[in-house]
Amino acid sequence: MLHRTAFRQLARAAMVHPMNVLELTGTGLDSLTFTERASPALGARDLLVRVRAASLNYRDLAIARGEYGGYARPLVLGSDAAGEVVAVGSRVTRFAVGARVCPIDTPDWIAGAPDERTFEKRLGGPADGVFSELLCVSEDAAVATPAHLTDEEAACLAVAGVTAWQALFVLGQLCPGDVVVVQGTGGVSLFALQLARLAGAQVIALSRSATKLARMKDLGATHTVDTSATPAWDSEVLRLTHGRGADIVVDVAGGDALSRSITAARVSGLVVALGFLDGASSTLDLPAAIRRSVTVRTSSGRSRASFEALCRALTSGGVRPVIDRVFEFARAPEAFAHLATGAPFGKIVLRVGAEAR
Amino acid sequence: MLHRTAFRQLARAAMVHPMNVLELTGTGLDSLTFTERASPALGARDLLVRVRAASLNYRDLAIARGEYGGYARPLVLGSDAAGEVVAVGSRVTRFAVGARVCPIDTPDWIAGAPDERTFEKRLGGPADGVFSELLCVSEDAAVATPAHLTDEEAACLAVAGVTAWQALFVLGQLCPGDVVVVQGTGGVSLFALQLARLAGAQVIALSRSATKLARMKDLGATHTVDTSATPAWDSEVLRLTHGRGADIVVDVAGGDALSRSITAARVSGLVVALGFLDGASSTLDLPAAIRRSVTVRTSSGRSRASFEALCRALTSGGVRPVIDRVFEFARAPEAFAHLATGAPFGKIVLRVGAEAR
Amino acid sequence: MLHRTAFRQLARAAMVHPMNVLELTGTGLDSLTFTERASPALGARDLLVRVRAASLNYRDLAIARGEYGGYARPLVLGSDAAGEVVAVGSRVTRFAVGARVCPIDTPDWIAGAPDERTFEKRLGGPADGVFSELLCVSEDAAVATPAHLTDEEAACLAVAGVTAWQALFVLGQLCPGDVVVVQGTGGVSLFALQLARLAGAQVIALSRSATKLARMKDLGATHTVDTSATPAWDSEVLRLTHGRGADIVVDVAGGDALSRSITAARVSGLVVALGFLDGASSTLDLPAAIRRSVTVRTSSGRSRASFEALCRALTSGGVRPVIDRVFEFARAPEAFAHLATGAPFGKIVLRVGAEAR
Amino acid sequence: MLHRTAFRQLARAAMVHPMNVLELTGTGLDSLTFTERASPALGARDLLVRVRAASLNYRDLAIARGEYGGYARPLVLGSDAAGEVVAVGSRVTRFAVGARVCPIDTPDWIAGAPDERTFEKRLGGPADGVFSELLCVSEDAAVATPAHLTDEEAACLAVAGVTAWQALFVLGQLCPGDVVVVQGTGGVSLFALQLARLAGAQVIALSRSATKLARMKDLGATHTVDTSATPAWDSEVLRLTHGRGADIVVDVAGGDALSRSITAARVSGLVVALGFLDGASSTLDLPAAIRRSVTVRTSSGRSRASFEALCRALTSGGVRPVIDRVFEFARAPEAFAHLATGAPFGKIVLRVGAEAR
Repeated sequence: MLHRTAFRQLARAAMVHPMNVLELTGTGLDSLTFTERASPALGARDLLVRVRAASLNYRDLAIARGEYGGYARPLVLGSDAAGEVVAVGSRVTRFAVGARVCPIDTPDWIAGAPDERTFEKRLGGPADGVFSELLCVSEDAAVATPAHLTDEEAACLAVAGVTAWQALFVLGQLCPGDVVVVQGTGGVSLFALQLARLAGAQVIALSRSATKLARMKDLGATHTVDTSATPAWDSEVLRLTHGRGADIVVDVAGGDALSRSITAARVSGLVVALGFLDGASSTLDLPAAIRRSVTVRTSSGRSRASFEALCRALTSGGVRPVIDRVFEFARAPEAFAHLATGAPFGKIVLRVGAEAR
Repeated sequence: MLHRTAFRQLARAAMVHPMNVLELTGTGLDSLTFTERASPALGARDLLVRVRAASLNYRDLAIARGEYGGYARPLVLGSDAAGEVVAVGSRVTRFAVGARVCPIDTPDWIAGAPDERTFEKRLGGPADGVFSELLCVSEDAAVATPAHLTDEEAACLAVAGVTAWQALFVLGQLCPGDVVVVQGTGGVSLFALQLARLAGAQVIALSRSATKLARMKDLGATHTVDTSATPAWDSEVLRLTHGRGADIVVDVAGGDALSRSITAARVSGLVVALGFLDGASSTLDLPAAIRRSVTVRTSSGRSRASFEALCRALTSGGVRPVIDRVFEFARAPEAFAHLATGAPFGKIVLRVGAEAR
Repeated sequence: MLHRTAFRQLARAAMVHPMNVLELTGTGLDSLTFTERASPALGARDLLVRVRAASLNYRDLAIARGEYGGYARPLVLGSDAAGEVVAVGSRVTRFAVGARVCPIDTPDWIAGAPDERTFEKRLGGPADGVFSELLCVSEDAAVATPAHLTDEEAACLAVAGVTAWQALFVLGQLCPGDVVVVQGTGGVSLFALQLARLAGAQVIALSRSATKLARMKDLGATHTVDTSATPAWDSEVLRLTHGRGADIVVDVAGGDALSRSITAARVSGLVVALGFLDGASSTLDLPAAIRRSVTVRTSSGRSRASFEALCRALTSGGVRPVIDRVFEFARAPEAFAHLATGAPFGKIVLRVGAEAR
Repeated sequence: MLHRTAFRQLARAAMVHPMNVLELTGTGLDSLTFTERASPALGARDLLVRVRAASLNYRDLAIARGEYGGYARPLVLGSDAAGEVVAVGSRVTRFAVGARVCPIDTPDWIAGAPDERTFEKRLGGPADGVFSELLCVSEDAAVATPAHLTDEEAACLAVAGVTAWQALFVLGQLCPGDVVVVQGTGGVSLFALQLARLAGAQVIALSRSATKLARMKDLGATHTVDTSATPAWDSEVLRLTHGRGADIVVDVAGGDALSRSITAARVSGLVVALGFLDGASSTLDLPAAIRRSVTVRTSSGRSRASFEALCRALTSGGVRPVIDRVFEFARAPEAFAHLATGAPFGKIVLRVGAEAR
């Protein structure tokens, strides 16, 4: 590795900028390492963004542990950030220097359905991600930060927020009066709770913790089910819905709970399978699914159109993301360890570059 | 015509019931006449419903005036009622005697899109409608009255309520943060306002009356536009939406205002053309519509699935229809005259059969 | 049981008709028994249909074996028939005596998506089905037989034909140039092959039999894959589609092959899971499904709107169902045994009431 | 203007290339002028494309005549081209030098629905178009030319082909057996005819010329209607469809014919309004549209996803565009004059840069 001073001199000459990044160099949380890199060269339609905050997702943890993706190392993790535009390419028209922006996590996904090439440049794997002081992104691959949110809050949106949006309003078509089931207290589930309530739907919240259920009730959950007391939560969902079942089940657990998601859904209902916290492999009871004409949809990545729609909704409704805890960037490994406990209620945020401000 | 006593005797023998109905015998409001008929014979899957309340729609007025439909006379008008099941056929399973129900206005439209035969038995034209003391409807052609609503309120749903529901959630796909434009203070527009707010959307309300705009603001309108002061309301919608335009314009005016609805809609936006209060003929600026990739959808009739979804939403949100005024059934012609003034704020309801209660 | 002559006399007096039906009285193919019943009473909107032909579906076999449904016995099986209207109720308008019709198998499903009550009267379980000389069905629950088809051919449509239609054009949205995978040579798969070709799509046909693959090639299959030689047929589908994958996989096998269906689908692709010939329980690799953003849809029952659309398509394209073999009604148990071999290429048809013609 | 030799020397020094373009400098066909420009600088993700063929669209004519768009001059017209990649930017991954490509006409529209910024860089207005020897386009804004097509044929796809595709399969959802109405013999209409036939639909073709109708019959039209003999062609469509009406009417005429398109559509049918050859202003009969629950959709621009789907369909079906006539680039003004006659049967193509080959 170059000596830091020499590196900074070289970088300045090349009109690129040195930046601190958090690299994953191998497998396991102890292979997360801070290092210095040069920022990428700014293309004619690119933005240089100074990252102010980033947030962790379960995907980052699964990649770090070697449980997902199998992407080449070293890899800068992170898909979820907010910052400020500090330089723009010569042909940029969408944003000006000083604009507050959030990068989209799948830069090639503007709108519509993805195809087989859409995910090739996904931030945080396979492409380098946002756990970095500076980012160079296409002007097409960023959205304006909602004015009512801090950077810490805005850094929660790109993955968890937009995933919840897509589950309810793109993969599903949620209407007022519909019933949504959310599982646990991770970012996606809490966003789904908040967005479903904003849309006039009812929410049945599941958790193994009575304390967390109480907090979900405060966030607007219509009903709560303690799954340690009531493991057959699918029957409870049917009971609470007078036998009809839920319109949308947002499943982040995977594993054998996916079967319960299917029996908890109404006839012609939707299960959005977004995660596998309880197991990567699910056993499906096909006759049960067929009898209920259920649809199971999965999704990887998110479109800019969905991100923009989410921002309009949050702004219109004055909704703010739920943050569990904010860590300084330098303490990112602790943040990962905290996520790994499975205990958080909401998002875990990294504050980036505070010393430079 | 039979002498009334003889008629009642005959009817009793045939196991049918005499009932008072409001018939349209010609063209114009003065051809609305009360007369006595025998209730239809109850089929194996039919319900006999004692009507408790019914409401007027602009469609009834347009048919009475000879401006719409051209249906054969005599015709019992009315598409919108609520009542109680007083007898059931031998194979009925969906409802029991005593159940509170609302008939659906298009008995053959259960779900999905209508086809060329769907409207053949539409209540209030071409088939006899609900301005009657008794109704005989298929058990498939009724929905359960939401428990939190009175019969007067429930009698507002079948047409205005379900039309607004279909405009926002079936023809359109309204999401939180979207912008909806509603015109005036008729039943459809006020339901659209209430439902859009329930769904977390923003509403721009148009009216020529400052007083009515104030009441729409009370109902939750985000912005109001006084179209007597601002006839170019499409420009105002663009201004209020920072140039983006409305996601859905619920157009009940028709006439040349339809062009404004199109320019007020966002690119890829939707205009739902539901009425023609301002004129049955519209001049369309095609290049303007094409430049904005706008969709114009119309709809006649409503499905039971939409009605049931509306009921779930109203129940979940505790929303009640806005009633302008309630008339006794015997004063129905006055109710028509009141509707014809164009002044109402909300629905005009007939209370039916009160003397029998 | 009544003596047959006495029964016929009684029936005549009651204006109902004696009819021979094939009842399932217990579990297993040897509990299929012919018996005589009285036809149901004809309601005002009902059709009395003399069945000319009916066809077997795997569902009938699964119910008979006690593997599906758990419906009360005795039960008349069968969902798939064609016949002639021999009497109509007093208010029938859709069909006249003499009309050739096919009953729809889910009488309450006219159009749109089903709800929790839609399947309550499904023919062949839970309600009595079509393996009967006479049927009484609502006029709303029948479609006109396509003129170019014989009754034997038309008796193949209601389940296998409409299921394939829904898979490709209702659950999916097949376009010309798309790629469809079909498995084996049952009724649904062969209809899917024929309909996909009619729609300008490419078809990859899978079978363990080279002979059957040759026949599928004759029916228009673009590519064939012998799965006994190439068990990893998902890789072969990816190879044949230059890495893109199939737009729609019509999965009738279930079991562990469902995982291959998911990896054979393109990003954002669709797997329609319609059966479980290879196993009722499937193990799902969730990360694999999520990475490809695949949707898995199931379906039970079929709508009249889909049936009518299928009829238009078959008529327009001059397409005829593929019939494996026709049995006389009296030899229905042999027909079931033939289906149970899994060997058929196309549909197995029962010719009903030929002696009466 | 620079002397040509000096210009070429300057251009070489700047690593850009001189190129002949057809500029619109004012209003009217006589303001179409050939001039020399420097090719734009190649960005890191750009392709430099040597244009081999381009085709004319009615849109080019309308802009030249000052009837549409009002874009700033000088403007290079043209949205529809095919050529060869002659240089690629440093980060290009989708195409290599030598690849045959077609630019998409709306470079920012990859998939999904457009928004208010999507059309800002549309080729041929407001941005410079393809009537040029060289083009510099983002690698994201091009598709691979179908191998079975010549460059002249491929130059017909981007506008007329993709517009027809979107009308039938994106705005509409065409199924086998559906009925499509096409008007006249322009590029969009003939593509719609060919694609609808490829999809197993029936086509009713309208024209004022018996000769052209005969050629449309040869292309596969199911029925033809001579609108000079039968001006009330909507009634004829209803007759030909046994009263049901057309599933999709592809309306390129606009003007008062739009009303006929609406009455020719089936209940719940679709009119795609794509042009205004017969008039920019249409009078709409709202009650008629409402009674039939018709949807009118318009569209401007086209997505890359649609273009790619079209290419797969053409390749799979071996379909080739219908070319009316090919002109050398230098004779482009004559080509415009030919288009203005309204007489062409299919596309008018410019052969570009032939002398350089």
